[in-house]
Amino acid sequence: MKYKKNFYQIKPNDVIFKKILQERDEVGYYKLPFQDINSITKYSKTIQSQEVIVVGMGGSSLGVKSIYDFLISTKELKKLVFLDTVDPLKINYSLRNVNLEDAHFLFISKSGKTIEVLSLLKYIDSKVSLIKKNTTIISEKDTPLHVFSTKRELTFFEIPKNVGGRFSVFSNVGLVPLAISGVDISQILHGCKKVYTDFFKGEKYYKHIIEKSRFLVENKGRFNINVVFSYSSSLESFNKWYIQLWAESLGKKNVNGTRQALTPIGLIGPDDQHSFLQLIMDGVRDKTITFIKIKNLKSNILIPESSDNTFKVFDFANTKEISFSEMLNLQADSTIESIIEEQDIPTDVITISTVDEYNISKLMFTYQLMVSIIGQFLQINTYNQPGVEHSKKILFDKIKKLGVK
Amino acid sequence: MKYKKNFYQIKPNDVIFKKILQERDEVGYYKLPFQDINSITKYSKTIQSQEVIVVGMGGSSLGVKSIYDFLISTKELKKLVFLDTVDPLKINYSLRNVNLEDAHFLFISKSGKTIEVLSLLKYIDSKVSLIKKNTTIISEKDTPLHVFSTKRELTFFEIPKNVGGRFSVFSNVGLVPLAISGVDISQILHGCKKVYTDFFKGEKYYKHIIEKSRFLVENKGRFNINVVFSYSSSLESFNKWYIQLWAESLGKKNVNGTRQALTPIGLIGPDDQHSFLQLIMDGVRDKTITFIKIKNLKSNILIPESSDNTFKVFDFANTKEISFSEMLNLQADSTIESIIEEQDIPTDVITISTVDEYNISKLMFTYQLMVSIIGQFLQINTYNQPGVEHSKKILFDKIKKLGVK
Repeated sequence: MKYKKNFYQIKPNDVIFKKILQERDEVGYYKLPFQDINSITKYSKTIQSQEVIVVGMGGSSLGVKSIYDFLISTKELKKLVFLDTVDPLKINYSLRNVNLEDAHFLFISKSGKTIEVLSLLKYIDSKVSLIKKNTTIISEKDTPLHVFSTKRELTFFEIPKNVGGRFSVFSNVGLVPLAISGVDISQILHGCKKVYTDFFKGEKYYKHIIEKSRFLVENKGRFNINVVFSYSSSLESFNKWYIQLWAESLGKKNVNGTRQALTPIGLIGPDDQHSFLQLIMDGVRDKTITFIKIKNLKSNILIPESSDNTFKVFDFANTKEISFSEMLNLQADSTIESIIEEQDIPTDVITISTVDEYNISKLMFTYQLMVSIIGQFLQINTYNQPGVEHSKKILFDKIKKLGVK
Repeated sequence: MKYKKNFYQIKPNDVIFKKILQERDEVGYYKLPFQDINSITKYSKTIQSQEVIVVGMGGSSLGVKSIYDFLISTKELKKLVFLDTVDPLKINYSLRNVNLEDAHFLFISKSGKTIEVLSLLKYIDSKVSLIKKNTTIISEKDTPLHVFSTKRELTFFEIPKNVGGRFSVFSNVGLVPLAISGVDISQILHGCKKVYTDFFKGEKYYKHIIEKSRFLVENKGRFNINVVFSYSSSLESFNKWYIQLWAESLGKKNVNGTRQALTPIGLIGPDDQHSFLQLIMDGVRDKTITFIKIKNLKSNILIPESSDNTFKVFDFANTKEISFSEMLNLQADSTIESIIEEQDIPTDVITISTVDEYNISKLMFTYQLMVSIIGQFLQINTYNQPGVEHSKKILFDKIKKLGVK
């Protein structure tokens, strides 16, 4: 009797952990927490401009924006303006109050040939000459953008070849603009190191992340949508970063050629209680929900008691004087309770201590690790993006037809 | 021989159309295109403030914001600042450059008792007294907010009882703030009328909308995610409005108690080519894609040719001088082509003529009609939102425990 088999099996946790240990030597982002940031810190202090234009698409801007937008309402930072499109309406609108003469320009592209970045570079250079004083280039070595920076004698920061765009926030891609803006990038790396160390020591983080990853993979047929429900508007850009990280890393064919799809969705509370929540509660149970709360919002704005008798009519909602922070977290807790009561909606809650560099980088590094682990469970290549090449080829064909200069 | 049956059957198109004709008499939004806007136009001219704060959650702000953000980069409008959260970080940040003394405040809540709106009202009233000169209230009649407006002698605009929050953009909810901002609201209604008339005459729109709705319902098991991929950043708020309209209207149990879930996702091109596109291409084929393009972006910003020889290195991408608009639509077309080639990704393309009031309202009224039709196909109540009541109850219980004043 002969027996052949070709089962797709989800590997045991310890095998996955070994695979992560193996890829740690090849995949660049794991090493970023331990890099030397002296040259970045030093360079950032030489930039006098009060406005910094960050030109980059996808992974070249979403990570920076996550951290910047998380911190901006509690910290004095230089203004970063993000150009991440060729939409002329947004370009115009983003630059409407910017004095280009006094601004600093950062062009970020891993491949050094992203068409949107090059188009914007040509446009800006036609308005104000890009020279050493006002321009920084961040790219892989030996790319068109790198060669350009050499010819123009511009300051150049390298993106390591083995660091993928969506895993690059803790490389020069993120650290250079953030340092220029005034973010404490040593605290950023400190947060990454904490997660890295806890994880590879095999403690709490290890268990949480592996357990969650395995759950998502084992139940991907039933729960094909993964919602991140963040209870602070300061996490809206983080949500977008999460969507890119998740969609582009995990939307792949696996070793058997089977299409995988854990589809990410980002929500903001309480806003989306008035929008998406109805679908979570009464719709098909095809979603997992991860809540993110911030314990200390560093804000003391109060919802006042009022003795004015015209307010009597609101008595049903009249609390003692409480803070908006408290109200926000009461709303988060109410939504969480109502969802957990449903029992068949897989839910977890991440609570961030406060709004600072250390905490946002812990969150983001944790998500990177989790995506790597899910990728190993799914038996896919987490770090490439073959699916977007075809539309790029079509675009370049169209451009050629227009008549290359 | 006896025979019993209890099949769930999708009804024929003409039955659905008849049901829409029936609900047209009960559901308020159908009549909005034909309302008299004289009093709004007149009132809007009396507002001198250059900054207008719009306080409203979900349907009370998403629709206004869609139209405002669509128009703002091509039209001179008074600044609208949206407060749609109790997150103190966003409240602080949104108001950082606003002179409250000179601002006008619009409080919008259909129920007149939205906790976020009341909290913000109390907060703002503690900073600057809310009086007739600086405040407008928009609500249903006989709600706490309406009573408050009477006691304070504030200007009040009514939301009809039979117009649901997410279908209220063409009622006073949308028209009052938009008129104050400087938007031509007669053109807004003109766009609605055009869609309404074409649809009920049973012509092109009728066929398109019914055909698409039926497809989505017949295939909801296979394609449970509906992506809107808008090729202009000016449609980002429209995407959010679409998400609310879709999720809150269609995320329901039907007449048989079966959970329905067409899950909406909003993407922006080209940005999300660098993010979500990989998942569409290589992931499970569980998504329909609707592209929205704008033919004439009213912009002549050019990507210049360059004779500077440092640009030689970018020759591969050097076109003749073309506009950013052209580049944006080339990118849209390339992505559309690459997705259509895949054959098993259901796709349609909506092309808007240009960036103006008439065109955005046509798009939005069409989406409202489509959601009504899908609701009829699904045999659900499209206009309620029972799933969000439980978390509100929990919240009020928590507030009570804190000690009501």
